[in-house]
Amino acid sequence: MNTEQLVNQIHKKQSFLCIGLDVDLNKIPRHLLAEEDPIFAFNKAIIDATHHLCVAYKPNTAFYEAYGLKGWKALEKTIQYLNTNHPEIYTIADAKRGDIGNTSSMYAKAFFEDLRFDSVTVAPYMGKDSVEPFLAFKDKHTILLALTSNEGAFDFQTKLVDGVELYKQVLETSKTWKNSENLMYVVGATKAEFLADIRKIIPNHFLLVPGVGAQGGNLQEVCKYGMNRQVGLLINSSRGIIYASQDENFAKAAAENATKLQLQMKAILSEQLW
Amino acid sequence: MNTEQLVNQIHKKQSFLCIGLDVDLNKIPRHLLAEEDPIFAFNKAIIDATHHLCVAYKPNTAFYEAYGLKGWKALEKTIQYLNTNHPEIYTIADAKRGDIGNTSSMYAKAFFEDLRFDSVTVAPYMGKDSVEPFLAFKDKHTILLALTSNEGAFDFQTKLVDGVELYKQVLETSKTWKNSENLMYVVGATKAEFLADIRKIIPNHFLLVPGVGAQGGNLQEVCKYGMNRQVGLLINSSRGIIYASQDENFAKAAAENATKLQLQMKAILSEQLW
Repeated sequence: MNTEQLVNQIHKKQSFLCIGLDVDLNKIPRHLLAEEDPIFAFNKAIIDATHHLCVAYKPNTAFYEAYGLKGWKALEKTIQYLNTNHPEIYTIADAKRGDIGNTSSMYAKAFFEDLRFDSVTVAPYMGKDSVEPFLAFKDKHTILLALTSNEGAFDFQTKLVDGVELYKQVLETSKTWKNSENLMYVVGATKAEFLADIRKIIPNHFLLVPGVGAQGGNLQEVCKYGMNRQVGLLINSSRGIIYASQDENFAKAAAENATKLQLQMKAILSEQLW
Repeated sequence: MNTEQLVNQIHKKQSFLCIGLDVDLNKIPRHLLAEEDPIFAFNKAIIDATHHLCVAYKPNTAFYEAYGLKGWKALEKTIQYLNTNHPEIYTIADAKRGDIGNTSSMYAKAFFEDLRFDSVTVAPYMGKDSVEPFLAFKDKHTILLALTSNEGAFDFQTKLVDGVELYKQVLETSKTWKNSENLMYVVGATKAEFLADIRKIIPNHFLLVPGVGAQGGNLQEVCKYGMNRQVGLLINSSRGIIYASQDENFAKAAAENATKLQLQMKAILSEQLW
């Protein structure tokens, strides 16, 4: 899916919500553990109940790898289910990969060709040749970590490099890379006021914003500073939606929480008079 | 395996060689493609021919993920083969993971508990809480990216942060993290002269050094600047060993190339009068 198609979906659904599919078997409803594939059963129920409320799903690969082969299989089934039944949905592999050139090519192949995700998150530490192999794929996005939503973001990302924070250097430098139009960026919602500065550097790129909800970020603030003329935001919520309830009505509860966010988004979009 | 056991293996084998198992189906001997699991068949042949010459194997996860479920299964079979038949071998999952705290815990579980690797490579960009979940595992090592061997290393890693290169900040800062004695660091061999400075910051930690061979690094130079009293080095070679030949004698050719490096290492160790 390309950027234009994503923007069209946002307007159609009046939502720029991304739902994080971070499935922890200790947190899903007990009755699902009797299923042959509890992870996929959980994801399918969440997707069936929420797909009209969001434009994207983002499985974090850690939660699948932790269950070995079964986990990887559940990830495959989830992306296949989305690609087959909901081709209008934008898919993000939250994998935070990155390696030397020929190795990054293998990761790109894994997520773009084998699993057929629309996008993958990538860490910037290894620089240009670790990211460009991802950028080479047409109609796919590479979502580069810029400013993350965790405490550790202040260990290195906000340190001054030649008088400018490292995460801003990542934004500036990555803009010069080949096929940089295929970049999006991860920017945590817990630092909404940073978004104004960020938009000066990258006015046009989409931002994937984690940290609304469980991590304390505020949707209105993020939109105030981060929106652009193409909306330019995907707001991710994981735990706040998928673990809304642990009983048999978990999917309905997830849809209710997703609806709350979607209605806020609809209101924000209408205020912007698109 | 803990550090002491690793050091004992190095002295016993007179080798601090790590062999990278980066299996690309386009590069392995054609006749193996008829095998049920060509990736594992290749790894098994390489391991059988070289395990007495090295102390560690390092599969890079990208090369397995690129083949989907089959690839992940081959990775599982490879680590199981090593753990069962060669418990004296130190194993490294070259995964370059890193995420927010609870998610990094899932990755640590995947590589340390599910796959039972001795160590995993981790990217530092997300800071302390993205790395400490890995460090919490007893008798396991977390190998943090410091200075990598690719061109892109100069994009951010060598930039000055408060007058000190970012990779040195990563070394200094990570030393203060909980269980930092479980850290090792990735330092590329292509910048051997940087090792003298690195050893001033982290005199005792082991370094995993890629880039000897295919990427042009020099073993003598690396040892001159990087060795410490516990040897403190794992020198990785991947392509230079495993793709020494593409014919039916590939494993023998790999062993020959591994022997060349092992003999150099033996000479260096004897010069050091351990």
